[in-house]
Amino acid sequence: MSRDICIYQEFLTPAHQEAIRAAAGETGFTPHFFTLDQFDQARECLQHCEVLYAHSVDLLRAAPETLKWYCCSFAGVDPYCQDDGIFKNPDCLLTNSNVYGVTIAEHVVMVTLMLLRRMPEYEAVVRERGWSNQLPIRSIRDNEFTILGTGNIGNHVAERMRGMGAARITGLSRSGRAREGIYDEVLPISELDRVLPRTKILVMALPGTAETIHILNRRRIALLPGDAYVINVGRGTAIDQAALKEALDGGKLAGAALDVMAPEPLPKDDPLWGTKNLILTPHVSGNMTLGYTCNENVRLFCEDLKNYAAGRPLNGCVDRKKGY
Amino acid sequence: MSRDICIYQEFLTPAHQEAIRAAAGETGFTPHFFTLDQFDQARECLQHCEVLYAHSVDLLRAAPETLKWYCCSFAGVDPYCQDDGIFKNPDCLLTNSNVYGVTIAEHVVMVTLMLLRRMPEYEAVVRERGWSNQLPIRSIRDNEFTILGTGNIGNHVAERMRGMGAARITGLSRSGRAREGIYDEVLPISELDRVLPRTKILVMALPGTAETIHILNRRRIALLPGDAYVINVGRGTAIDQAALKEALDGGKLAGAALDVMAPEPLPKDDPLWGTKNLILTPHVSGNMTLGYTCNENVRLFCEDLKNYAAGRPLNGCVDRKKGY
Repeated sequence: MSRDICIYQEFLTPAHQEAIRAAAGETGFTPHFFTLDQFDQARECLQHCEVLYAHSVDLLRAAPETLKWYCCSFAGVDPYCQDDGIFKNPDCLLTNSNVYGVTIAEHVVMVTLMLLRRMPEYEAVVRERGWSNQLPIRSIRDNEFTILGTGNIGNHVAERMRGMGAARITGLSRSGRAREGIYDEVLPISELDRVLPRTKILVMALPGTAETIHILNRRRIALLPGDAYVINVGRGTAIDQAALKEALDGGKLAGAALDVMAPEPLPKDDPLWGTKNLILTPHVSGNMTLGYTCNENVRLFCEDLKNYAAGRPLNGCVDRKKGY
Repeated sequence: MSRDICIYQEFLTPAHQEAIRAAAGETGFTPHFFTLDQFDQARECLQHCEVLYAHSVDLLRAAPETLKWYCCSFAGVDPYCQDDGIFKNPDCLLTNSNVYGVTIAEHVVMVTLMLLRRMPEYEAVVRERGWSNQLPIRSIRDNEFTILGTGNIGNHVAERMRGMGAARITGLSRSGRAREGIYDEVLPISELDRVLPRTKILVMALPGTAETIHILNRRRIALLPGDAYVINVGRGTAIDQAALKEALDGGKLAGAALDVMAPEPLPKDDPLWGTKNLILTPHVSGNMTLGYTCNENVRLFCEDLKNYAAGRPLNGCVDRKKGY
């Protein structure tokens, strides 16, 4: 019986397809490629496939009980970790693609600098063809960061801030542990209340789980210093948005940059729009970049395909109960 | 006879004044502090001063022949290098303050990412409360940089791009030499034509001299690939702005970010406003940041004050003929 892979992706170049064909050939698989406008064809093909490489809740729901591995090309897999029978095969492996650390970290560096350097205000000056340049600005150099979530994203952010001369970088993780040599200090998330008062820039990069909902609540926002900035690239549910808006509009915080919100898309009449000193972006931080992210995504899939065929553990494996 | 220093600055905190008083005390000087609204008082005091620490063409013109050292708190000293008798004492020492590399490099990182990540377009989406996020974006990681001018600014830019995973960083300087270990390759500026076609991000950080005027002219702009970006934080005169505008509006370049223009302020009716894929900022890249830049400025002045008193060469010395 042939072993088939259903691949439902938009970003693959001919070189990427070639790499996948080569890895599949080596391991006795046949890949079937579909673009996002070929949903029906992909669903039909999927019925005899053992592996799916995609990022589609709808397609996964249409998969047969015989699907053994779903490789999600995104990093955030919360939609696949709800116990609602989305997997017909309860033992189906789920992997995510942890290749977004670089692009998300570049987004974080960008918005951190835009906040510190008052860029939204200068852009307003320029839109009026004005010329004023005396706003006090701040620097990454010698500044103090707290990174909530020390996974792939948090690590890449910390490395970049370190390279730009940050004075202190504190990492917070569930276990209180993280990769060596990146953070000045790593603490368990239970220490968050103690760390917030000394935080100048809070970067939030947590997965969406029951424990992270509204982790930055009204009480904790009040623990941050008045000149602090908040940046969220994890999940929108991690912040009490009403409380954040109040703090920003009331000048209790210097600014914030949210790339994730609840809900998404943010409704046109949501009070968050138009909040003072708030940079909103429509969930773009983890967008694949031409080149690096796409290449890495394919490379990791091919690597795990070889692991899968050889019966070895998969690098990107997600614990569906924990949600990450 | 007392040896006096006239200090005409806005940014000094009490701690900075204390540091200057201490350095002056050690070396037998008396500092006199004036804020920018005390021009007349500063001018009067200056008549019996040996040293001036300021950034004011007008005040320098009012200095007596007995002024021996003008420490400019800015990095760009082109206004002081024109042979028009601005110095009554032809042997007066001129030093500049090379402390802006950090803040200017942070600006360059910010605008580079804003260009690569299509931020002006996403900001337009957000102003309309929209939600679309499918623009192809690019990354600093694996990208190719050319840095025109390998002084303090260029070095700090290169270090940051290297830290973020740039694939290749070529430095261009008058001498073809630069600090070791920062650039993949350093070439003389005469090689510019050969380097432009392989440049994806051109960062210009040149001083304003006769040789740098329109160094990026129409012919050279055409040598850049169509997906290249141009960033200028040196002097506006280095670019043929009409040719740049044409290339951007015609889609011959991916984008540009100019923090310096000719003239400044840019007139309300200048054709440069509203150019496609152009980020303009009103000469803010070298703004002092709260903390680092201010502290360094004072530290360097105090260090050179001790050098001056001891008859040693000054660190910040500028060759008034060369202009840097």
